[in-house]
Amino acid sequence: MDIQVLRRLDEKNKANADETRALLDEHGVRSVNMMGSPGCGKTALLERILPLLQPTLRCAVLEGDLFTTQDAERVAALGTRVIQLETQGSCHLDANLVQRGVRELPLGECDLLFVENVGNLVCPANFDVGEHARMAVVSVTEGHDKPSKYPLMFSRADAVVITKLDLLEHTDFDLQAALAGIRQYNEHAPVFQTSTRDDNFDDLVGWLTGLCGQGRRHGGA
Amino acid sequence: MDIQVLRRLDEKNKANADETRALLDEHGVRSVNMMGSPGCGKTALLERILPLLQPTLRCAVLEGDLFTTQDAERVAALGTRVIQLETQGSCHLDANLVQRGVRELPLGECDLLFVENVGNLVCPANFDVGEHARMAVVSVTEGHDKPSKYPLMFSRADAVVITKLDLLEHTDFDLQAALAGIRQYNEHAPVFQTSTRDDNFDDLVGWLTGLCGQGRRHGGA
Repeated sequence: MDIQVLRRLDEKNKANADETRALLDEHGVRSVNMMGSPGCGKTALLERILPLLQPTLRCAVLEGDLFTTQDAERVAALGTRVIQLETQGSCHLDANLVQRGVRELPLGECDLLFVENVGNLVCPANFDVGEHARMAVVSVTEGHDKPSKYPLMFSRADAVVITKLDLLEHTDFDLQAALAGIRQYNEHAPVFQTSTRDDNFDDLVGWLTGLCGQGRRHGGA
Repeated sequence: MDIQVLRRLDEKNKANADETRALLDEHGVRSVNMMGSPGCGKTALLERILPLLQPTLRCAVLEGDLFTTQDAERVAALGTRVIQLETQGSCHLDANLVQRGVRELPLGECDLLFVENVGNLVCPANFDVGEHARMAVVSVTEGHDKPSKYPLMFSRADAVVITKLDLLEHTDFDLQAALAGIRQYNEHAPVFQTSTRDDNFDDLVGWLTGLCGQGRRHGGA
């Protein structure tokens, strides 16, 4: 007689994520899970860094959204290979959907894979999607209190990108307080201060390039 | 023999929400569920409108956050009765937690109750918490594409508040596109254009006051 096993959903997710990571490792592809609030500037960041990365690295993007292909179209316009992952209203990407996306990619022609998660500072932090590194993105206009109010996202990040620095002078954002908030939950992640209106992406591009170079293995959550 | 009934979680939530709404109705209290992304300005909005409302209406706030009492402290500083609802990492308020908060309030001394939800443009839209009206808050800095990318939040709103209008000139935000995006999913909700750096809250305050005056009954989702 067959015994029905209802495996816990998070165990199933972890197994899928590990499979995906193994498949990526096999092809020498590094993956970055980009997470942050709606409108924090994840896609705008990709629009700036992909042209800087592409001369040396073959990049691809899995674009997570509840609905629409708006962001995927922006990435495709850069000549980057992109697949839209539509969650149909779900608040985060899970490992199964990302795995399906990864299997559609020509992994032999790829060095660095960005997975742009659904705009949400809460739920995505709980789901390993098979990434090698987690990037938390937070914008100046969201306020410097965000790291301390959403600690899970920042504590699990391998890198933090602060965006929209050009708006700093027009807001009450306290950069030192934000940095202190990040360090309260995360001692080691590099913090990159950026603005898509300026050319200040060298450090971030260097970090991403290093991620590919060092063959770093990261177990995920 | 007792039969174990595992009621669907969303049915249980709806039942709790209906109970809360009935309790509020009994005391003539109107409730508004404020929802929006992290850092869209929900608390800052409360800081501006509560002083304008309080001369004529007795207000209270249930302040939803994953962790910390930072926002509750900001509201308490206005002399407003506030209770912190800490979700301990959960991405939305549910009807049970709000009901517990409502039961702690002296409802006989209250006309208008704001429930500030967890910063999240996705999950809160799926949970009736016993509100009479739903307010979707979206900031200029999040981008004009947000209504079309997060349609559930906007389609179910009874009012939409656009915040941070003072930053309009420093961004690529297209106000007409944002308004069209809202109207695509919601034909009737009033849209209030605000900035906490200006005094443009009359229409919003009028709408909230009217909500209390008209004894409007709203079934929730």
